[in-house]
Amino acid sequence: MGVVVQNIDRAAPDVIDGLAACGVATVHEAQGRIGLLASYMRPIYRGASIAGSAVTILAPPADNWMLHVAIEQIKPGDVMVLATTSPSDAGYFGDLLATSAQARGCRGLIIDAGVRDVVDLEKMGFPVWSKAICAQGTIKETLGSVNIPVVCAGASVEAGDVIVADDDGVCVVKRAGAAEVLEKAKARVANEEAKRKRLASGELGLDMYQMRERLAEKGLRYV
Amino acid sequence: MGVVVQNIDRAAPDVIDGLAACGVATVHEAQGRIGLLASYMRPIYRGASIAGSAVTILAPPADNWMLHVAIEQIKPGDVMVLATTSPSDAGYFGDLLATSAQARGCRGLIIDAGVRDVVDLEKMGFPVWSKAICAQGTIKETLGSVNIPVVCAGASVEAGDVIVADDDGVCVVKRAGAAEVLEKAKARVANEEAKRKRLASGELGLDMYQMRERLAEKGLRYV
Amino acid sequence: MGVVVQNIDRAAPDVIDGLAACGVATVHEAQGRIGLLASYMRPIYRGASIAGSAVTILAPPADNWMLHVAIEQIKPGDVMVLATTSPSDAGYFGDLLATSAQARGCRGLIIDAGVRDVVDLEKMGFPVWSKAICAQGTIKETLGSVNIPVVCAGASVEAGDVIVADDDGVCVVKRAGAAEVLEKAKARVANEEAKRKRLASGELGLDMYQMRERLAEKGLRYV
Amino acid sequence: MGVVVQNIDRAAPDVIDGLAACGVATVHEAQGRIGLLASYMRPIYRGASIAGSAVTILAPPADNWMLHVAIEQIKPGDVMVLATTSPSDAGYFGDLLATSAQARGCRGLIIDAGVRDVVDLEKMGFPVWSKAICAQGTIKETLGSVNIPVVCAGASVEAGDVIVADDDGVCVVKRAGAAEVLEKAKARVANEEAKRKRLASGELGLDMYQMRERLAEKGLRYV
Amino acid sequence: MGVVVQNIDRAAPDVIDGLAACGVATVHEAQGRIGLLASYMRPIYRGASIAGSAVTILAPPADNWMLHVAIEQIKPGDVMVLATTSPSDAGYFGDLLATSAQARGCRGLIIDAGVRDVVDLEKMGFPVWSKAICAQGTIKETLGSVNIPVVCAGASVEAGDVIVADDDGVCVVKRAGAAEVLEKAKARVANEEAKRKRLASGELGLDMYQMRERLAEKGLRYV
Amino acid sequence: MGVVVQNIDRAAPDVIDGLAACGVATVHEAQGRIGLLASYMRPIYRGASIAGSAVTILAPPADNWMLHVAIEQIKPGDVMVLATTSPSDAGYFGDLLATSAQARGCRGLIIDAGVRDVVDLEKMGFPVWSKAICAQGTIKETLGSVNIPVVCAGASVEAGDVIVADDDGVCVVKRAGAAEVLEKAKARVANEEAKRKRLASGELGLDMYQMRERLAEKGLRYV
Repeated sequence: MGVVVQNIDRAAPDVIDGLAACGVATVHEAQGRIGLLASYMRPIYRGASIAGSAVTILAPPADNWMLHVAIEQIKPGDVMVLATTSPSDAGYFGDLLATSAQARGCRGLIIDAGVRDVVDLEKMGFPVWSKAICAQGTIKETLGSVNIPVVCAGASVEAGDVIVADDDGVCVVKRAGAAEVLEKAKARVANEEAKRKRLASGELGLDMYQMRERLAEKGLRYV
Repeated sequence: MGVVVQNIDRAAPDVIDGLAACGVATVHEAQGRIGLLASYMRPIYRGASIAGSAVTILAPPADNWMLHVAIEQIKPGDVMVLATTSPSDAGYFGDLLATSAQARGCRGLIIDAGVRDVVDLEKMGFPVWSKAICAQGTIKETLGSVNIPVVCAGASVEAGDVIVADDDGVCVVKRAGAAEVLEKAKARVANEEAKRKRLASGELGLDMYQMRERLAEKGLRYV
Repeated sequence: MGVVVQNIDRAAPDVIDGLAACGVATVHEAQGRIGLLASYMRPIYRGASIAGSAVTILAPPADNWMLHVAIEQIKPGDVMVLATTSPSDAGYFGDLLATSAQARGCRGLIIDAGVRDVVDLEKMGFPVWSKAICAQGTIKETLGSVNIPVVCAGASVEAGDVIVADDDGVCVVKRAGAAEVLEKAKARVANEEAKRKRLASGELGLDMYQMRERLAEKGLRYV
Repeated sequence: MGVVVQNIDRAAPDVIDGLAACGVATVHEAQGRIGLLASYMRPIYRGASIAGSAVTILAPPADNWMLHVAIEQIKPGDVMVLATTSPSDAGYFGDLLATSAQARGCRGLIIDAGVRDVVDLEKMGFPVWSKAICAQGTIKETLGSVNIPVVCAGASVEAGDVIVADDDGVCVVKRAGAAEVLEKAKARVANEEAKRKRLASGELGLDMYQMRERLAEKGLRYV
Repeated sequence: MGVVVQNIDRAAPDVIDGLAACGVATVHEAQGRIGLLASYMRPIYRGASIAGSAVTILAPPADNWMLHVAIEQIKPGDVMVLATTSPSDAGYFGDLLATSAQARGCRGLIIDAGVRDVVDLEKMGFPVWSKAICAQGTIKETLGSVNIPVVCAGASVEAGDVIVADDDGVCVVKRAGAAEVLEKAKARVANEEAKRKRLASGELGLDMYQMRERLAEKGLRYV
Repeated sequence: MGVVVQNIDRAAPDVIDGLAACGVATVHEAQGRIGLLASYMRPIYRGASIAGSAVTILAPPADNWMLHVAIEQIKPGDVMVLATTSPSDAGYFGDLLATSAQARGCRGLIIDAGVRDVVDLEKMGFPVWSKAICAQGTIKETLGSVNIPVVCAGASVEAGDVIVADDDGVCVVKRAGAAEVLEKAKARVANEEAKRKRLASGELGLDMYQMRERLAEKGLRYV
């Protein structure tokens, strides 16, 4: 505890932006169905879709001091990822911290705890994915750490990993493999467009994916 | 397991549409306060209000194979109802399956599990009531069944039962009694309009429903 | 049980309206971070922001009789606060009761249970903060009480206390101290505006709040 | 609502007792992995292992009147199964009702709600599987039904179905198929004993079940 | 915050002990079915049954400093009741604090948070009813208060109220009415013994409580 | 997915056994209050207290194939740690697998899912800490991995890390630092014994830890 890692590696900006364009569900599939945060992490408003480099924060319950420390470490395009040392739904983050983070170029916050001032955050266009919306105030008494590996909502996140978040949830992509994941994600997007047209025309997935034989082998009976 | 029932009976289309117009709360009351699914089943977007004949699906956890099988069984106006053999919040359903289902005339999905691509689903106007929004991918390995009786979110549903769903939740109406329930629901709607006007004018429910005497008998004291 | 307290004291209208303008997060901070209801209490639609004097209701599970009794006690500007004697997510309140309450000048409902007809309630502009949205009907068989002290969603509420509610949640302000809390809340609002400008210009909270020295004393290490 | 079905069919006593001897996990497997109640249903004390014919009860939230009605319908060897019309954790059942039920030959209670007097129930040897232990009292105001089909903790139960319950949970076996399920369950028990010895001697499941080839085909890599 | 009320009134020792002998379910009924804490409050071991005067504690999340302050205020026969300012499952209390509390004559702890060292606590015979068992350590940084009114697990508790706790849960009895509640509880106990004998002999509650007529009036049908 | 790491490093046996002797709460404190699994992980029976080297398993929901693969990798003294790719409460593990694991010298299982045959497991003395007790059967269709880093119940675990588990929960100690943590844990144990005696004699923590001055500085007021 009490450590701030100042220099972190980040993925290439075009890779990050490419992942944002693909969206969470596609990126998650493209990297082998790993990296999703728990489904209780929900956006405070609909329609935001972002990607950015993780600035990780490990914070005590109901103590938001490390958010101030973390904001100094933000580079434009980053996303803050806050995990707690024990569960809390307190409101660690509101419009003042969002103003400060946004001024540093932060694209959003992923927080396994609570957030408040959600009306203001939506007006500012500062998206947050959180476990709770809660006005409960926090203190500034105990150290945590910044940019160390954390477990946030069931997913392991290291500083500099790419965070992708939209209305489907939040996914983490390991920095080192981000470019490769992007290629696979783009391929899926291209591939899905053709499938979508066929399905829209009435073709069945049973036929398009040639499932009938395997279903019969498994014993599916029509009665 | 591994059974697909192909021919199911459905309620009359005008009965189904009539129930949709009455809405979940009214239909639930009209049939004696039964048939509601658990309140954790929430719409992925606000404002959808549908009714349709249930095509039921029993699926393994995190395995969406049976959705492909079920889509072939859909007739225009149907609603898919998916229950799982053990709890899962995985994202069984997204925009490709919705494209396919919509092409067959499906009006929506009720799923006691997760759904993804919710932005696309809202754009397509394909409503889903689910336990979770979750991007987690699913597999196609294990058989389930289609159009057998299922328990979905605490309610027993048989193929061909009428599903009514809106922002208040989801209600199932037994096919055989659907026309009778519709009559009672229409009577409630008519009756409520008169009550609404009296209440809006300031008349109290205590007086309109003649509650004062019974409250006094029960011992209510004003101090 | 079975008691209706008819005459309750209320805070001054300008104090109540002033608290509404400050919002939940600010009021909660201004009174020393107490008085918040549990974060599971969510608004049925976004954008409502109210304050009012509490008319408290203690009701049995799935029995909404006392709501009718309570509505008679409402004065313009009041907010109903319903607690249950044991947990329930049934739909105690819908558009008819809302019509009646609104006709009496009621500003909203805080209910540690379920609500229904949420589309209609939004159209009417009658806001509700609830534990659940649920169409389940209720009965009128058992007495509860009106305007006695209750515990609602973890917070103690007495009749006449000021309820402040917005998208961040619900906060209760003791009637006797409401004016003083308003003064402190206004001071916070004024103070925050200056901070917001400094943070927006890129100044760090670490500097603005002079946190660096204390962090170092606690042992924070930059690596 | 308000119906008591008086004459129900039951499975043969030796079948019921045979299922009890096999236990929940084995019976559940033997009938194709269906029929389990949700895992939140827990025994109030450890070590009870029963089976019996279901006397079903549908009861309003926090109203235990129908338990009195149901007890009259009990035949020796029966198990009561209580579902509620909307969720409740109130304490529907305690030592007085257990005394009465036990006097009629009832073997236990499965209740998707709360129970109380658990110390006395354990002393009496009257087992209960419940959602909660809760002292909250209930009322006797509203009718429910006895021996109609219910959904209890996610499982569909009809009067006369066989209920099997032990420390692993609760399973329902359809009456009509109970004898066949028992045969399969016994076969599993016999089969498991041989496997247990081989595994105890150090033989691996990988070899005993000949899994290695199929794992390799699926692509398992040892590194 | 930051207040310790030193002198509190307590109920008479024989009243307190009498309530312990009656048990939670009976006391709860005797006082009109109020005062129960939420059913998630469970004993860390079975078989403890206590009553005592409440020493109340309001503590920050994951900060157990106020427990040290509270222990000084304990008189023999007291029970500590800890509520938190926002939810926490951290382990506020373990064997060292229990040793200290027990040395002061404390009979147990009711805590809407976590507890640890449960093996040692059972060996010491120091019972705890808690929301969680959790080893998570706590800090000593922020003030709370002692012997102010708190809301613990949904129940309002004032210092000096009588806490009754056993395997059925936890109930609070207002100090001023405790003697009266004891009288009613004793009457229930006496009354129940006679009922128990009649029920054990096979008499039905339907007859003993003369329910048949009222059930028929409500419309119960036997088929 | 689909990877089995065969050679893992383990901590020294005496270090592992020393950590078991200290217990979860002490070890957790000794390593700076990190490494705890979520408090919903509970032992299936009371009184077990173990430590061992982690053999990690990442498994699909309701698919226990990888447990067979993992058992081959067990060395005497190991503990299996199973995480799932999406949430499941199915019963992955029962008495047959336990027989096999025990024959290989496995000391227990930590599983963020369900377990069954708990009566048999207790008889065998094979302890399990799990999220659920559930008889639901699982399949063997999809690969996972063995001995890769996993997140189990919110904690990051690598193969060979030391798992400590008792009635207070489960804690993971990084292999590399295990010896150092043991030293600190032993020091705590020694230190606590002296404190326990002083507290048992009636000395207050307020005095023993010299808290009074700091409490006064923070503003604690006695009234």
